[in-house]
Amino acid sequence: MPPEASVHEIAPRSGTAFTLDKGERLTVIDPQGEQVADLLAFVRGDLDEVISSGRTLDYASRIYLTTGDPIYSNRSNVLLRIVADTVGRHDFLLTPCSADTFRIIYGDAHPHRGCFGNLAAALAPYGVAPDRIPVAFNVFMNVTVDGGTGELKVEPPLSQAGDHVTFEAECDLVIGLTACSALQSNNGSFKPIRYRIDPART
Amino acid sequence: MPPEASVHEIAPRSGTAFTLDKGERLTVIDPQGEQVADLLAFVRGDLDEVISSGRTLDYASRIYLTTGDPIYSNRSNVLLRIVADTVGRHDFLLTPCSADTFRIIYGDAHPHRGCFGNLAAALAPYGVAPDRIPVAFNVFMNVTVDGGTGELKVEPPLSQAGDHVTFEAECDLVIGLTACSALQSNNGSFKPIRYRIDPART
Repeated sequence: MPPEASVHEIAPRSGTAFTLDKGERLTVIDPQGEQVADLLAFVRGDLDEVISSGRTLDYASRIYLTTGDPIYSNRSNVLLRIVADTVGRHDFLLTPCSADTFRIIYGDAHPHRGCFGNLAAALAPYGVAPDRIPVAFNVFMNVTVDGGTGELKVEPPLSQAGDHVTFEAECDLVIGLTACSALQSNNGSFKPIRYRIDPART
Repeated sequence: MPPEASVHEIAPRSGTAFTLDKGERLTVIDPQGEQVADLLAFVRGDLDEVISSGRTLDYASRIYLTTGDPIYSNRSNVLLRIVADTVGRHDFLLTPCSADTFRIIYGDAHPHRGCFGNLAAALAPYGVAPDRIPVAFNVFMNVTVDGGTGELKVEPPLSQAGDHVTFEAECDLVIGLTACSALQSNNGSFKPIRYRIDPART
């Protein structure tokens, strides 16, 4: 990676939002290993267009996406393309963790707002309402499927310290990104996520 | 099933929408076998609340849903519950087929509008915009996942003539329902779907 782009850090159990211009590259880095980052992308100027797990998985005929794979919108346009990936195992099936997740799955009486709440708060200044948050592309999340029974298991991420995934924007976007807040997704501890934005290639 | 409720038929490659009151039961019937029906449910009075594959699969920890399983909304409320199911294999991963599906996957030059277009047209009078159509619960659709590679395959439905699934509404809903328009999902031919609505139990 070129050295000039500055690296930003997302604190454990938090999230952020920022713009990404067409051609720019977003690299999501797991600095310590075994930490998930939930990624959302909305089309800037028409926020009703957003990444779609249903269309992306349908067109890929695969639940595991990696280098070369496009991430489609609900209108079947490519919003992002994965151009580098040192891990190869990410999830696009499960919703961002939320207060409801912690209440329903973990039984927490006073649940954290989770990635959903962090994304909603970070995206609010861009005009994205909470109801518009779809299934996120869960970078480094390791969800396995038993082909026979259909059972889903959330396993420890395969990412090690320094592993990263790079996405290239195919149009001007608003991005939401978190350091995931669910214990099970991150092998029992909450760590930061880092990201960098590199300019479009000329 | 009690005999008094009338049975409605959805013609091949078409769709419809209707209201379903809390407690009422919707039975989706495959009259000839091997025919998929895409099902959507929106909360009446607040259409921004809609069924969510990401939340439902997360809370179920399973991709295959059947009798007893709830279908959650994007706000983690239960909208429908499956109360009877003679097949046990349905899909909640893939988006409704659309003109884009037929263009991208089938290479059609003049594509059919698909379940997406049929749902959008049927739901428009209820105030549902096309961008609000999420991943549908694809009744009788048989999508397998290879747990190792993550490959998705659309296999012939396991449903035979007369097979059916019954959903109970947990709140007042707007329902969208189709006879699916994709060749691969329906083992190569387009057939009708039937449905009936039975009153709430007193």
